[in-house]
Amino acid sequence: MIPFNKPHLTGKEAHYMYDAVYTGKLSGNGKFTKKCQDFLSSKYGFKKCLLTTSCTDALEMAAILANIEPGDEVIMPSYTFVSTSNAFVLRGANIVFADSRNDHPGLDEDSLESLITDKTKAIVPVHYAGVACDMEKIMEIAAKYNLLVIEDAAQAIDSYFTFSDGSIKALGSIGHLAAFSFHETKNIISGEGGLLAINDDQFSKRAEIIWEKGTNRSAFFRGEVDKYGWVDIGSSFLPSEIIAAFLWAQLENLDDIQNRRKSLWGIYFEGLKEWAEENRVRLPNIPQFATNNAHMFYLVCESIEQRTSLIEKLQANGISAVFHYLSLHKSPYYNEKHDGRELTDSDYYSNCLVRLPMYYELSESEINRIISIIIN
Amino acid sequence: MIPFNKPHLTGKEAHYMYDAVYTGKLSGNGKFTKKCQDFLSSKYGFKKCLLTTSCTDALEMAAILANIEPGDEVIMPSYTFVSTSNAFVLRGANIVFADSRNDHPGLDEDSLESLITDKTKAIVPVHYAGVACDMEKIMEIAAKYNLLVIEDAAQAIDSYFTFSDGSIKALGSIGHLAAFSFHETKNIISGEGGLLAINDDQFSKRAEIIWEKGTNRSAFFRGEVDKYGWVDIGSSFLPSEIIAAFLWAQLENLDDIQNRRKSLWGIYFEGLKEWAEENRVRLPNIPQFATNNAHMFYLVCESIEQRTSLIEKLQANGISAVFHYLSLHKSPYYNEKHDGRELTDSDYYSNCLVRLPMYYELSESEINRIISIIIN
Repeated sequence: MIPFNKPHLTGKEAHYMYDAVYTGKLSGNGKFTKKCQDFLSSKYGFKKCLLTTSCTDALEMAAILANIEPGDEVIMPSYTFVSTSNAFVLRGANIVFADSRNDHPGLDEDSLESLITDKTKAIVPVHYAGVACDMEKIMEIAAKYNLLVIEDAAQAIDSYFTFSDGSIKALGSIGHLAAFSFHETKNIISGEGGLLAINDDQFSKRAEIIWEKGTNRSAFFRGEVDKYGWVDIGSSFLPSEIIAAFLWAQLENLDDIQNRRKSLWGIYFEGLKEWAEENRVRLPNIPQFATNNAHMFYLVCESIEQRTSLIEKLQANGISAVFHYLSLHKSPYYNEKHDGRELTDSDYYSNCLVRLPMYYELSESEINRIISIIIN
Repeated sequence: MIPFNKPHLTGKEAHYMYDAVYTGKLSGNGKFTKKCQDFLSSKYGFKKCLLTTSCTDALEMAAILANIEPGDEVIMPSYTFVSTSNAFVLRGANIVFADSRNDHPGLDEDSLESLITDKTKAIVPVHYAGVACDMEKIMEIAAKYNLLVIEDAAQAIDSYFTFSDGSIKALGSIGHLAAFSFHETKNIISGEGGLLAINDDQFSKRAEIIWEKGTNRSAFFRGEVDKYGWVDIGSSFLPSEIIAAFLWAQLENLDDIQNRRKSLWGIYFEGLKEWAEENRVRLPNIPQFATNNAHMFYLVCESIEQRTSLIEKLQANGISAVFHYLSLHKSPYYNEKHDGRELTDSDYYSNCLVRLPMYYELSESEINRIISIIIN
């Protein structure tokens, strides 16, 4: 049996969790939280970042920071996880769903401008499979209409975007705000967990307050105020030090994890490209401006029937391959609220994309077995 | 040095965390989550319960389940933690702050009826220090006006209420919904963590959906639907299995933890009662209908000056004693929104209450040292 995912342990998770447990600081915002935040800010060039209990929570923080109010419009792809939209719906936003690019499941930046109205407040590009949206174009459009850009970088740790002037920036460091996930299915994990990256200084102070349940507790501990109290809305967005300790063991081994995943991804790609071409099945497309963080290896079949039979064939051979996102504009919750536009590429990926097993412990021979079952 | 709090470890936390880590299920809603939920439901008579990442999150789930909408009024004491109110403010509620009882920091049930308007939707009694509010009276008033009761049982694990007919119920099992905390400062801990208890069946199905990011994923895994999708608002309220594993080690030792805390509490009480009477300092009052779960030992001084000098004297002797809640109706965030009523007992506890060190590893001789410093 080859599962779809297996959480990878670097070996030091339990050691650091012990450390947190025995130093007696178990609630959030302790030593390991700071280590993780410092590491991530410095490696990826975030102005500030805060660990959260999930990527969902990071998106909710972003929605609060963006001052989303009832009736505001937020543009995002329909082909994404429910949390991308729920975070904004919880603040009363109307979601304007955009289509995917035809050559990639990420947000179709060419459709963006036609969706902007005077109620639009933010654009949420989703870096599907860790592959960048066209952030240069998106940031230009946002600047033109004075909109916020909140990157849904759930899958996009350690991935980059190259601007037309040759400069390179990490995903999550380009938009005003960005959200990452450390859910067990991601490259870097902490069971459940996430991160809010803050790249625009106007949000730094308030982010800390919202994170600490709407109090100025962080400023109090820095000695900036003499007592702390309720100053804003907020929630308990910060994870336990136990979770941060686990995450630290992962971050220490980030390069090893990434190298391994990229090597596995390469075996899939080389082994399947000829077959894919012959059978009109598409393999992941990495645009010139993007890098591949090897979060996911997927195939795009010609039809839902072809995909179903492929999944069944793999299943019969003990291999778990999965499809996922159903277009959100067609979901039971949003179907009636959507403005009726057809989003054909979103539906196309909903129907035809299938993800193959992808995890650190997957062996080359297992991948070759998967490839040969697909090919034969 | 005697700190104010020290998280207690039962010894098996790391073992169970290892178990979760090495069985490879690290995201939420796995084996340990179910063990904790089953144990708590069965021990305390909740119809259903769901672990959350914090008590704040459990309160937010309750606010969503209560269908709180902009303009709705929610009644709660002013002497409470910001999360009690933030959870409802995030849904647009106006908070109507009630006063504390004079003989106890909990909600003054006699003031309740005068605060109810046709906009009132819910009452949130806070069981301060784990000591019950008058739940019989509160439930009667709620029934009369068709209001929901959401117990803020953050501090109230393993505490009970006796009804006038002699029947006894656990706190958190009486209101329609209830929220508990497992923050490191509580009797039973998981670093950060919480629980939503659901005692009214009308909320059971939706609670599960809101917990799972607004999807019907739980129903899908039970085979009730053939695919799952976005059906409601929601968030990622469920904690990692790592956190649930930690919590399980605590719950296995609940009786030992409770016995130890009660014994320490008793030493404080016996050692201080004569001095307190002579010095017009009040010790915790446990009403006849309530039990003492030994969450907290506190003194209520005659004035803020007396309290300040007591805290300073203890500090000078290496003992950390703390005050906490500032009345929320006077907070920077809510001051302007409050209707102007004076809440004198809330302010009284804000100014005069001081909490003494209280944790499992505190020794009898340390308590006696604290007592003798206070007395001399």
